[in-house]
Amino acid sequence: MASDTAALTPPRGEVPTGGFEVVMTHLTDAILDRTFPSGSRLPTERQLAADLRVSRSAVREAIKVLQAQGTITTAAGPAHGTRISTTAGHAFGRMLRLHLALGSADFGELTDTRVVLERAAVAAAARMATPEALEPARELARRMSSVTGSEEFSVLDTDFHVALASLGENRLISDLTVAIRQAVAPIIRDAQRVLPDWELLRQRLVREHVGILDAVAARRDDEAADLTEQHIRGAHAALRIDKESGAVEQD
Amino acid sequence: MASDTAALTPPRGEVPTGGFEVVMTHLTDAILDRTFPSGSRLPTERQLAADLRVSRSAVREAIKVLQAQGTITTAAGPAHGTRISTTAGHAFGRMLRLHLALGSADFGELTDTRVVLERAAVAAAARMATPEALEPARELARRMSSVTGSEEFSVLDTDFHVALASLGENRLISDLTVAIRQAVAPIIRDAQRVLPDWELLRQRLVREHVGILDAVAARRDDEAADLTEQHIRGAHAALRIDKESGAVEQD
Repeated sequence: MASDTAALTPPRGEVPTGGFEVVMTHLTDAILDRTFPSGSRLPTERQLAADLRVSRSAVREAIKVLQAQGTITTAAGPAHGTRISTTAGHAFGRMLRLHLALGSADFGELTDTRVVLERAAVAAAARMATPEALEPARELARRMSSVTGSEEFSVLDTDFHVALASLGENRLISDLTVAIRQAVAPIIRDAQRVLPDWELLRQRLVREHVGILDAVAARRDDEAADLTEQHIRGAHAALRIDKESGAVEQD
Repeated sequence: MASDTAALTPPRGEVPTGGFEVVMTHLTDAILDRTFPSGSRLPTERQLAADLRVSRSAVREAIKVLQAQGTITTAAGPAHGTRISTTAGHAFGRMLRLHLALGSADFGELTDTRVVLERAAVAAAARMATPEALEPARELARRMSSVTGSEEFSVLDTDFHVALASLGENRLISDLTVAIRQAVAPIIRDAQRVLPDWELLRQRLVREHVGILDAVAARRDDEAADLTEQHIRGAHAALRIDKESGAVEQD
């Protein structure tokens, strides 16, 4: 994307190759220039096809693509219809997971990116979070202290890091951290399942979560960031996950 | 995406709502379990439709979605056909630009995220980049010293930050930094266009780029990271871009 419009619209003067491109160009332009603001309802498929003189299947294809991007959502019920999204949704997580499978980012790269983002999020949280804002993460940490199964622990662990990343109040950092945590979740869960001394590691992770929360609550931002990095890297080392393949290392 | 497969496949036991979902599930599963590894060619549209007993339009819709995600690419020529991607492509940039328009991330959040990622990238570059690896960024910095037009400067500026972010060798950090830089490019370019003392700022930006490169070359990682942050935040302040709206602030 050398210029800012190249990836969204066909180059000027070039004839679009089909109805799909016409619809994509129309809808993305309308979103970018705020003709269709966040939360607004799209015209019907029939209406769009008539307005743009394209087939309804071309409209349907473009809508599928925008849904997959998290740009528009379709809901049933009283608020039914296709609307412009108000949140980024989980589109990032889906993309990251596929790119991990494709090898265009490996486990080590995802981990390093997560560390950079989560350090920033917890440091920001330590500078501004109120005791009330910390409560959801505290509650998750409490529940994790009594859950011993690796499967259930893994779900709570993802939720804990999501709650922590949300405290920084930067929605993009939070969305990206969540996406990476979810992309690596199956790797971490599989490694936990085969670890012989899982119970020891579990207790250590529980203690570390409490330590991070205490540093955030005490507004010690550098310490909270350092503890978060040690926690993530230490867990991966203990789980013996290979940085390139994401597989559990064998003796 | 509470579990790792929820967002990619319909819940077990639930009947997919149409051919599109059948194709998406089949293709994403095949990518995730490496049945279709990176670079491999997809079966033809006709073949997929027959294998999965769905319509060809359902196959076409799923392929459009995977293309928009950057998961598959379609090329003409000797290597023609639809293949599983080998790079993340520019799908992130497209998504970020739309989310910026939708208000699910504002200019300030994009900037803070970019600062966090680009600090990490230049610090990593300072720890490992060779003089040869630095050469493309050096060449861009040289060209920027003689280009006075804000339009051409803006293109080189994007390329410079892309070259810098690539030096860290973490492909995900680099892809995300590039995506954010490209998402904010039109905002920065428009602000440069209306700035009365653009020439003064231009000269300052040129000096700052050289300063960052010198710190990277001298392997001073903390200094390179600090200079990068000051450069980005200082430029936005000088350009008087409002953090929430992304508009140029008026007196």
